[in-house]
Amino acid sequence: MECNVIFQPSGRRGKIAEGKTLLQASHELGVDIEAPCGAHKVCGKCKVKIETGFFEKFGIDSQMSHLSPVTEEEKKLLQEKEIAENYRLACAAEIHGDVLVFVPEESRKADQVVLETGKDRSFKLDPAVKTYYVEMPAATLEDHRDDLRRLQDALRDQFGLDNLSIDYFVLKELPNIIREGGWKVSASVLYDREIIDVRPGFVRQWYGIGIDVGTTTVAAYLCDLGSGKMLAKDGMMNPQVRYGEDVLSRITYAMMNEDGRRKLHDAIIEGINTLVERMTEKAGIKPTDVLEIVLVFNTAMHHCLLELEPKYMGRAPFAPAISAPFDVKARDLGIHISRAANIHVLPIEAGFVGPDNVSVLIAEEPYKQDEEVRLIIDIGTNGEIDLGNKNKLLSTSCATGPALEGAQIKFGMRAAPGAIEGIKIDPETLECTYKVIGDEKWHGRGSKGGAKGICGSGIIDMVAEVFKAGIIDKTGRINKKLETDRLRFDENGKPEYILVFAEDSAIGKDITVTQGDIRAVQLAKAALYVGAKMLMRHLGVNKVDRVTLAGAFGSYINKESAMVIGMFPDCDLEKVQAVGNAAGDGAQAALLDKGKRIEARDVAASVEFIETAVEPDFQQRFAEAMAFPHSVDKFPSIQHILDKIPDRKKKAV
Amino acid sequence: MECNVIFQPSGRRGKIAEGKTLLQASHELGVDIEAPCGAHKVCGKCKVKIETGFFEKFGIDSQMSHLSPVTEEEKKLLQEKEIAENYRLACAAEIHGDVLVFVPEESRKADQVVLETGKDRSFKLDPAVKTYYVEMPAATLEDHRDDLRRLQDALRDQFGLDNLSIDYFVLKELPNIIREGGWKVSASVLYDREIIDVRPGFVRQWYGIGIDVGTTTVAAYLCDLGSGKMLAKDGMMNPQVRYGEDVLSRITYAMMNEDGRRKLHDAIIEGINTLVERMTEKAGIKPTDVLEIVLVFNTAMHHCLLELEPKYMGRAPFAPAISAPFDVKARDLGIHISRAANIHVLPIEAGFVGPDNVSVLIAEEPYKQDEEVRLIIDIGTNGEIDLGNKNKLLSTSCATGPALEGAQIKFGMRAAPGAIEGIKIDPETLECTYKVIGDEKWHGRGSKGGAKGICGSGIIDMVAEVFKAGIIDKTGRINKKLETDRLRFDENGKPEYILVFAEDSAIGKDITVTQGDIRAVQLAKAALYVGAKMLMRHLGVNKVDRVTLAGAFGSYINKESAMVIGMFPDCDLEKVQAVGNAAGDGAQAALLDKGKRIEARDVAASVEFIETAVEPDFQQRFAEAMAFPHSVDKFPSIQHILDKIPDRKKKAV
Repeated sequence: MECNVIFQPSGRRGKIAEGKTLLQASHELGVDIEAPCGAHKVCGKCKVKIETGFFEKFGIDSQMSHLSPVTEEEKKLLQEKEIAENYRLACAAEIHGDVLVFVPEESRKADQVVLETGKDRSFKLDPAVKTYYVEMPAATLEDHRDDLRRLQDALRDQFGLDNLSIDYFVLKELPNIIREGGWKVSASVLYDREIIDVRPGFVRQWYGIGIDVGTTTVAAYLCDLGSGKMLAKDGMMNPQVRYGEDVLSRITYAMMNEDGRRKLHDAIIEGINTLVERMTEKAGIKPTDVLEIVLVFNTAMHHCLLELEPKYMGRAPFAPAISAPFDVKARDLGIHISRAANIHVLPIEAGFVGPDNVSVLIAEEPYKQDEEVRLIIDIGTNGEIDLGNKNKLLSTSCATGPALEGAQIKFGMRAAPGAIEGIKIDPETLECTYKVIGDEKWHGRGSKGGAKGICGSGIIDMVAEVFKAGIIDKTGRINKKLETDRLRFDENGKPEYILVFAEDSAIGKDITVTQGDIRAVQLAKAALYVGAKMLMRHLGVNKVDRVTLAGAFGSYINKESAMVIGMFPDCDLEKVQAVGNAAGDGAQAALLDKGKRIEARDVAASVEFIETAVEPDFQQRFAEAMAFPHSVDKFPSIQHILDKIPDRKKKAV
Repeated sequence: MECNVIFQPSGRRGKIAEGKTLLQASHELGVDIEAPCGAHKVCGKCKVKIETGFFEKFGIDSQMSHLSPVTEEEKKLLQEKEIAENYRLACAAEIHGDVLVFVPEESRKADQVVLETGKDRSFKLDPAVKTYYVEMPAATLEDHRDDLRRLQDALRDQFGLDNLSIDYFVLKELPNIIREGGWKVSASVLYDREIIDVRPGFVRQWYGIGIDVGTTTVAAYLCDLGSGKMLAKDGMMNPQVRYGEDVLSRITYAMMNEDGRRKLHDAIIEGINTLVERMTEKAGIKPTDVLEIVLVFNTAMHHCLLELEPKYMGRAPFAPAISAPFDVKARDLGIHISRAANIHVLPIEAGFVGPDNVSVLIAEEPYKQDEEVRLIIDIGTNGEIDLGNKNKLLSTSCATGPALEGAQIKFGMRAAPGAIEGIKIDPETLECTYKVIGDEKWHGRGSKGGAKGICGSGIIDMVAEVFKAGIIDKTGRINKKLETDRLRFDENGKPEYILVFAEDSAIGKDITVTQGDIRAVQLAKAALYVGAKMLMRHLGVNKVDRVTLAGAFGSYINKESAMVIGMFPDCDLEKVQAVGNAAGDGAQAALLDKGKRIEARDVAASVEFIETAVEPDFQQRFAEAMAFPHSVDKFPSIQHILDKIPDRKKKAV
């Protein structure tokens, strides 16, 4: 006999043979119901509600009695109230007549996941490490398969996973784990190929971490790979800075010092271990619960972290040891998560732009962009710029310096509590108000805002605002004749503008913007600007249609401020978007969706690298780009803002 | 134009297009010439001699001038004398006319290898780890492939190896190695899949070790994987004996002690590291030059060495953690050879007979035996017995105890210098002569032979000889009324027979055979005998056609002595063969020929295990087998020897 079964809210319906479970029916009708325990009646996830009554519209008469009686397992896994409300487990309830089934939101399979960082990015939830629950027959004298074979057979029979290998360190404890679980275990499998974790009983949680290792800052994201949810994020200064502030000085350190490579490696690995500890503690789990890490970084950090010989990368023809994506065991790198855990390294692009840019690309997906020309700027100590769309993608890198990450700025700091992340200056009064990370309120003179320093987004605001207020001129020079007590002079007679007075700050000192700060930002923004213009020339376009500003800042940078200081060529402000740490988002995406690793491999092979710094007119273009916003190019999109800038020189004269 | 080319001594001949090299000609004509550098003119191995003159028989006129002139490379790689004698490098000499080429023995490709241990076993030389010499174009700004891709491309183009991965620890140093070798390297590849070693320039030597880890003794064989030659062998007591003499006591130790598993593991790994150091030092190489180890052992040693939880193996249903063959990195086991080196573990048989028996089977190959029924006895603390032929193979294991390896014997010792390995006793005079390992001479009374103790083969001789001389009777009891000063009594009044007098020994004490020694050997030989008989019953045969005696003894055991004490059922002595450590030979075979690993996997799956100790009449059969040679069964093959045994009891009365 066949019965009418209808699933809501999808409305999918069909005839189902009597005796099948609701879960089987859902498979036949293409309805996604979450059943992580593989229909073993242990997880209680496949909860559905039976609507009873005569449904004229559907022509069926749905009754609870059309299902097999409530089982013991359901009594254990469902609340009494739920049973009273006609909830059933889809894996337990057998069909014996017409039924109308409602699948609640929480029972629908989440195959999409939205990142909590960056802009709202949504990816498929299809991690490289998946966890499968299996039940095995106990070993007997008649069925004397070895433990691994028994587990392999169960995974093959219950999930179609064939030819699985097992990590040696997992194998060591396998006999104990299997028996502790009473022949029921949850096995985590990497790439559907290798068993890298086995835990007793039904386990739904397993974890991964995406890490963006910048030259100056490290940002890490702990994710639940079962749900795709981000559980914690954390960051720190790259501990390698003690061996050199930029990549060239670190490579030099590695070359000139015995054990230099080892020391650079140890420093960043120790940093990662600290981040892992802090994040797992915050999430209430153990570091050994983490089964995978995805790493992104620039090419030099790639070699320094992996302890690959970096010296040939520092000189022509700049060949790296490896460009391809690869996987290595956590234990071989000294990372203290599960010993069998996988570390996945995204590929280096042709032309040796780092995995961090590949990560930005898989987060932003410009290769899916139809006609518009997109400019993506990833701001960091090494800036990376991409330009193009699905027809052609160019990339370049430029030596931005660490100014926009807070280094080389007198009161610069990492995006952390106490950092000023936003600044406004009144052009009339020259009064400054500011916003500190972790505090919604804007503070001004006489208000204790707890400011300790200024992070990246604040630095961009700071320079844009002093320019807009006429405190600096187009060349970046601070006007020494300002009529405000916010103007002060340092011991060398250099002028500074006071953002926060000592009595209002958390450090007992005036927080100021100095002439040196302005110069550092000018160098950084000019490098980015010229890089973008050179790519435009190579692509043969005069204008970009869309600009994306990425970077490991605490919060999004103010796109208007960024354009006012001339960080990138003119573009309709509506089409400019700040997205936060896109490289970090790409790392998370590659963690949660293994298809992203294929995209990364493909885009790394297809993007065309342009070495912009060797162009003959580079120096001249760079000099022109030092001015605010530029000494030659026009910015029609913000002309109305530029027009309002007071000419204090005239006023002061 | 085509030229006549003839290769001697094979006599292969044919027409070859002008301009081809002699090496290319050899490939076309199916002549194997060794060319390990891949015709790059760096190794000088493909040396051939050109015979000049008019060869009527072949109808050709061979001249040196029929070849291209001697190249610079040949002048470097050949001696002046060789050039004068018309030697050429086959890879360098181009054909421009008829030539008769003689390929000397040393230039012929060795694809067969004869083991130096055991009987003359010959295997294909086809190791799992192979070394390939490649030359790469240097990196330039135009050809900016990364180092790994460059190496992968060279291995693909020059040897057809595709999709090679690389061990992380090899990758780390790759940039330096490649440049040190001037873009010429020798890469060692595991299973044609993974690059596990890269060395600068042309390297012909790479090494592997086969290790048989017995309960009591460990035997190791260092081989040159390029030539198949054994360079060193060594052995030691298994350092785990300090935690228990037999497998059950070790498993119990592991279960009862925290860190017990770790301690057992550490002890044997430390032992292996010592053997590796001793053998590589002897061979003049470094431990890190060793790229693979093949391990064989019984199932309990398998788990104890690999640190797999052993406790469920000690009780029904005796399931091991893993039966399949597997590979693990040397670094993960703590074995100090190359960090990227592979450790290959042979499979456990169905029924949990250990990889050591699988190793015996791939050495002896009874599965290739046509009709004769073969009995293979591997003598060790755990004896393994195999019976059958290619139609059917049965196996069993029996608790022999360590007596035949020298343990539990008063003057027993490991096969090492100073150990008595052979004994003869004159039935008339009751005088004893003996042979000590490392000394060709037989010693007797008044001759200082340097004896320190007795090893396995000596122990079997010793028992056989005291029985043949009537010093013990059929039940094993020592005749207390012997008329010889070699009879003495210990402090408890127990009789002993003096093999070596104190003044002749190297230990200042009489070396004797005690009543206890006889009893220990009786238990061991009875266990082996009953095991063999039970298998015969299962196979339905009354007689075996051929017997092979294997064991990790210093030299071969005396087959006649073994049959006289009743270690195995009657068989024509001509068809009995002692082969030494067949398990060790199998480990070497699997090291030198990866095809043997497939054979191992297949035979492990097909051999049928018989649990003989649970048979209802086991106890009775065991009691019957205690007598010399047996209390019921007849031994027609040695009846003439048994007939000559003097009946000293009667004489003494």
